[in-house]
Amino acid sequence: MKPVIDAMHRAVEDLSQMETFHGYGASSGYDFLKKAILKNDYAKFHFSTDEIYISNGTKTDVCSILELFDENATIGIIGPIYPIYKNGSLCLNRKIRFFSSKEEEGFLPTIPNEKVDILYLCSPNNPIGIAYDENTLKKIVEYAIRNETIILFDNAYYAFVHSQGIPKSIYEIEGAEKVAIEFRSFSKSASFTGVRCSYFVIPNAIHPSINDVWKKRTINRFNGADYIAQRGAEASYLEESKEEIQKNMKDYLVHTKILKEAFHDLGFTVYGGEDSPFIWVKNKEKNVTSWDIFHLYLEKLNIIITPGIIFGLEGNQFFRVSGLASVETIQKAIERIKRYYES
Amino acid sequence: MKPVIDAMHRAVEDLSQMETFHGYGASSGYDFLKKAILKNDYAKFHFSTDEIYISNGTKTDVCSILELFDENATIGIIGPIYPIYKNGSLCLNRKIRFFSSKEEEGFLPTIPNEKVDILYLCSPNNPIGIAYDENTLKKIVEYAIRNETIILFDNAYYAFVHSQGIPKSIYEIEGAEKVAIEFRSFSKSASFTGVRCSYFVIPNAIHPSINDVWKKRTINRFNGADYIAQRGAEASYLEESKEEIQKNMKDYLVHTKILKEAFHDLGFTVYGGEDSPFIWVKNKEKNVTSWDIFHLYLEKLNIIITPGIIFGLEGNQFFRVSGLASVETIQKAIERIKRYYES
Repeated sequence: MKPVIDAMHRAVEDLSQMETFHGYGASSGYDFLKKAILKNDYAKFHFSTDEIYISNGTKTDVCSILELFDENATIGIIGPIYPIYKNGSLCLNRKIRFFSSKEEEGFLPTIPNEKVDILYLCSPNNPIGIAYDENTLKKIVEYAIRNETIILFDNAYYAFVHSQGIPKSIYEIEGAEKVAIEFRSFSKSASFTGVRCSYFVIPNAIHPSINDVWKKRTINRFNGADYIAQRGAEASYLEESKEEIQKNMKDYLVHTKILKEAFHDLGFTVYGGEDSPFIWVKNKEKNVTSWDIFHLYLEKLNIIITPGIIFGLEGNQFFRVSGLASVETIQKAIERIKRYYES
Repeated sequence: MKPVIDAMHRAVEDLSQMETFHGYGASSGYDFLKKAILKNDYAKFHFSTDEIYISNGTKTDVCSILELFDENATIGIIGPIYPIYKNGSLCLNRKIRFFSSKEEEGFLPTIPNEKVDILYLCSPNNPIGIAYDENTLKKIVEYAIRNETIILFDNAYYAFVHSQGIPKSIYEIEGAEKVAIEFRSFSKSASFTGVRCSYFVIPNAIHPSINDVWKKRTINRFNGADYIAQRGAEASYLEESKEEIQKNMKDYLVHTKILKEAFHDLGFTVYGGEDSPFIWVKNKEKNVTSWDIFHLYLEKLNIIITPGIIFGLEGNQFFRVSGLASVETIQKAIERIKRYYES
């Protein structure tokens, strides 16, 4: 995106001149970016810059936040799911409770049948590729309020959400600001994977001193995200950038839909892909593991899919396919897949 | 530095084109930068790229590394010292043992009189402004080998070291590669405070599987440093950059020396400033706290010094003064200080 590239070049220039040099900024991020986030992403809500944190990647953020809570807090994880919640919790030696979402419920998150202190939730979900509807999120927020659970809401793929009845932010659910921390990233929307810039919201409504505690942690463990990345991220909110992001997201969703239909036509059961660039495909043969499928696709079709077992044992009959590619690449992949299954 | 600025502009361009785009890199950093570090900083030693980690700031690194060790490991901290070791250890709920360096020993680090599992060491020292000589480091490495202690060697200011008999890296000490992890930063040498790029060495000699463990942690907790920062850091090793860095370091040391002499002429006892841009000044009046001095300098002289108590209780009769300013600024400050004390 030209405005983002231009902003980053200007930021490099800023750093090269004594008059405009930016050294250590606030460890929670620059106000210029926090304000752009509040205005563009959270205008409906009443958060302040004190409740926003700029960081260098959602993967880091969703694990580091555990340091805000007691070491003995129980952590609920609903699989199949992005493996980082489990691995990050294990790195910090935390207590995990696993729950499974069920295929017969369309892989909507199962409400835990016991109290957990912290609950990871990912919507749009990685790997299932579905974004949770209002009713589902309401039930989870009610569970959290009832059990004094904090929801860690990984919303990294929020920019793909466009369907009716699917909240873009968990804060659209009444009471969520009392129980949920929402994580977002510029990686998926503005292609910042190599630039490293993310953000998250810790509402004061959770606890009046929660942000004092987290600011202390942040000051002691982090010296802020890169200035150039923050200037680039700010420029991703300019009108021209927003239009381009919207167009990109729409294109990727079209590619994902083409993929989904192709698998569907071949008789596969497929989930997701409406508000996410991922589809979750059920393997037709039993006795074939998701790693078998991976090797089959890699070696026979020259296509990379992600084996479902990476996201938990429940995923072993599934594989994740991504629509994050050009339409030509997607078409070529579909041709190969069709040729294989139809021969 | 022009080569660094140019490299960063090129990196922004790389990210703007599909053909040269860099998304998620290795979470431990790009090989191009690791190789530049090995060649320029560690040519004398035999480290491999597997033993180098690129990160986004030494403050983060010196605390995060604690996750490599048992939660019950005892952590030794020798004060007065940069407060992050204490605060970061407390954030992770670790057990700390405090030791004091003594003025009568020129603030050289006191060897702990008990076994600690981990020992923070900072040289060139912040705040004292001295870099430890070979003999001192030898004694500490011997202590570490004897006690199976891991030394976390914060070497962020290494670029200021130039005196005879002062090792630039702890690995110049025999056996140090078996007990020490060394942390460095581009912030001080190449003015990367706003760019965020740091690195550290975990030698395989500490334990054959130490890097397997840390790579797993890194993959699960971090998605790599910014590509633009890493390209900039790489360019800081070009001949033209190295010459400019060396000149800058020399200039800052000249400014620091001018400051040191000025305080000395006014009858103050002063430590440091030979291989570091900091001096550690002893307040002449008793019954005056280091915060009193801070307010005096701020309000009467319009100068910011750092009160010694920030670095531990032992520091309350001292204040830290930085030579990281232009010679004009330093001269102006000295005039004001002289006028105050001589009137």
